[in-house]
Amino acid sequence: MNALSTSQLPVGFQASGSTCGIKVSGKPDLALFVSDRDATAAGVFTTNKVCGAPVIVSKQRVPSTVARAVIINSGNSNAATGEPGIQDAKRMTLALAEQLGCDTKSVCVCSTGVIGVPLPMPLILNGIPHGIQSLGTSDKHFLEAATAMMTTDTFPKLTSMDVAVAGGTVRVSGACKGAAMIAPNMATMLSVMMTDAQLTPAQCDSALRFGVDRTFNCISVDGHMSTSDTVLLLANGAVGGSLTDADFAKVREAIQQVCQKLATDIIRDAEGADHFITIDVTGMETREAAYRMAQEIADSALVKTAIAGGDPNWGRIVSAAGYAHVDFDTAFVSLHINGTEVYRAGIPVPFDAAALSKQLKTNRDVHLQLAVSGGPCSGNESVRFWTSDLTQEYVRLNSEYTT
Amino acid sequence: MNALSTSQLPVGFQASGSTCGIKVSGKPDLALFVSDRDATAAGVFTTNKVCGAPVIVSKQRVPSTVARAVIINSGNSNAATGEPGIQDAKRMTLALAEQLGCDTKSVCVCSTGVIGVPLPMPLILNGIPHGIQSLGTSDKHFLEAATAMMTTDTFPKLTSMDVAVAGGTVRVSGACKGAAMIAPNMATMLSVMMTDAQLTPAQCDSALRFGVDRTFNCISVDGHMSTSDTVLLLANGAVGGSLTDADFAKVREAIQQVCQKLATDIIRDAEGADHFITIDVTGMETREAAYRMAQEIADSALVKTAIAGGDPNWGRIVSAAGYAHVDFDTAFVSLHINGTEVYRAGIPVPFDAAALSKQLKTNRDVHLQLAVSGGPCSGNESVRFWTSDLTQEYVRLNSEYTT
Repeated sequence: MNALSTSQLPVGFQASGSTCGIKVSGKPDLALFVSDRDATAAGVFTTNKVCGAPVIVSKQRVPSTVARAVIINSGNSNAATGEPGIQDAKRMTLALAEQLGCDTKSVCVCSTGVIGVPLPMPLILNGIPHGIQSLGTSDKHFLEAATAMMTTDTFPKLTSMDVAVAGGTVRVSGACKGAAMIAPNMATMLSVMMTDAQLTPAQCDSALRFGVDRTFNCISVDGHMSTSDTVLLLANGAVGGSLTDADFAKVREAIQQVCQKLATDIIRDAEGADHFITIDVTGMETREAAYRMAQEIADSALVKTAIAGGDPNWGRIVSAAGYAHVDFDTAFVSLHINGTEVYRAGIPVPFDAAALSKQLKTNRDVHLQLAVSGGPCSGNESVRFWTSDLTQEYVRLNSEYTT
Repeated sequence: MNALSTSQLPVGFQASGSTCGIKVSGKPDLALFVSDRDATAAGVFTTNKVCGAPVIVSKQRVPSTVARAVIINSGNSNAATGEPGIQDAKRMTLALAEQLGCDTKSVCVCSTGVIGVPLPMPLILNGIPHGIQSLGTSDKHFLEAATAMMTTDTFPKLTSMDVAVAGGTVRVSGACKGAAMIAPNMATMLSVMMTDAQLTPAQCDSALRFGVDRTFNCISVDGHMSTSDTVLLLANGAVGGSLTDADFAKVREAIQQVCQKLATDIIRDAEGADHFITIDVTGMETREAAYRMAQEIADSALVKTAIAGGDPNWGRIVSAAGYAHVDFDTAFVSLHINGTEVYRAGIPVPFDAAALSKQLKTNRDVHLQLAVSGGPCSGNESVRFWTSDLTQEYVRLNSEYTT
């Protein structure tokens, strides 16, 4: 399994990024991903009750064995737009399907950007032919598509990985966008994953959920679950034929790796953030308990501001885990910050606070390890979670963003 | 039922605020509240698994029918200090009990301030005699006690209310501290409530829980549940004899009113906040569903930054309610911001955004009303919740606070 130095599309996939004029900045705002043959597809969507029209439409179209394309616009989320918004989302898929010569049901749709404003449909409909003309298979085309998905992102997010299986070398590729309104289940994030491996509908769905649960659902910038989150996986079977169980395991692992690279890129691009924080909670009886503790640490404004200030304020970290509704006993808890033990068996450990503070101030990466080693709710399950710090710049950006 | 212009103690209660030297600033840091006779007492405490030693000790002492005093120090929370911390908390209560001539079990203890540092016991033990000498019944004594509870608070928080009952006029008084690490269940907040009404242990407990559920558990500054939160109610029965059911209802109402004044004072004093936000969620089938929706709105960093910036960004508000795990239908949801309808039946309502933005920028008070008028999970229950906005100043304060 090898990461590629430039991100390239799997066999049989094309992509394009173009400008249809939704963004007043004139930046690219229309991305297309197209398979030249029917693909197996699965999707994972926001669980927000206030979800965007494209989520409602795309949800009806996966799982699928006849998926052909994904159309994505940035600059407008088509969320909170009522029944007219749903009709607009359907019209986007119909227009693309007609021009590709496939069924409407073979097209999924995603939109990201401002909430509650009707889509400028003439711009989108006029833009689709140009998007189709711009399709191509090169790494440049893939990069342009990922770029056209961006909103407040400061860099495009895409990655690819090759996997040797019995029938040849298959590729898993993915692009995503997201930089704020990021929370588990999921974020204002969209991702399209593609592979030329052949997956059954059940394999497609289980591999996607396995990967998303451990990556996109383990990141948080600000704990605000968006209305638009969507991750789609299209597997067109262009390479290698049907997979052995061992080869499927390899492909599933590659899908998780690609998801993880994209998810952590979102955290690296978190709005206004100075630190990239990895949180490991280990030694719990269930993955869910470890997850809740990690999530409370990740979402605590006091933990995030402490790290922004380079302050090894372990009390905020331990106390955040304490309100995760997990019945652990502090007498079995220890905490390391960047490898330095600061708390053991429920009491503080003397440490060089000035040195640790300096280390926090001069390194972007922070590692928090909360370990439980016995007592109620303890066991062998662990979770890794990623988040960013909370800076004055985050507040400035989100105070000044105009609706 | 009348609010008093200055906050005064109920009959039979004394208070003092003094300086024992925990705070390097030299500000008052030791508060005593003493009843001259045995009082019925109840308590509500943080549910954080990482709770302070004083919480562990005080929890064992309520409910009580022989409560006599509460000792509070600020500047050090005696949290995450292990078994030695518990011994220190017990020693504080023992020292006060001996000098008051009552049983140790009659004294509750609270501490607030930095986490994970052993209490400077010699300072506290030396300070107790002076605290006792300073006890008095005047409004000045009550104010000094409330002042000695403060940490990052910018003003002392105390209030009193008189209630006419069959046997005379009883008084309900309360003091609290808190300005950050504020979340439901509860906050880095301590409160002592006192009344000279006669309450049975069951009445004392139910009245306190009723009041706290609707006030201290309906505020959030930053969603971080503290290790130290404690609300105590002492009822010494000095006035009026046993209460009729109707009179108990009046006293319970007064307790809720006093709790509400103190809880909203915490939000008015929220660290770095520019806005005081009242959130009403109405029309739900259960109070719990309404509560979860209000809490998600209150805790959303994106809602709080939008209001800090004077931005009527209703999409953030509605989408925060959307991830509260309540199965409502947006087609029945409306939202008003400061009386202006911005969202109705699941779609945006045109409004004068510039005028509303100007109003938000020039008024400290903000009122968000999310109303559900039908569909799944709808009904007649409602919840009022209070929070503050999230400003760059909040981040600055909490980044620079040193452990």
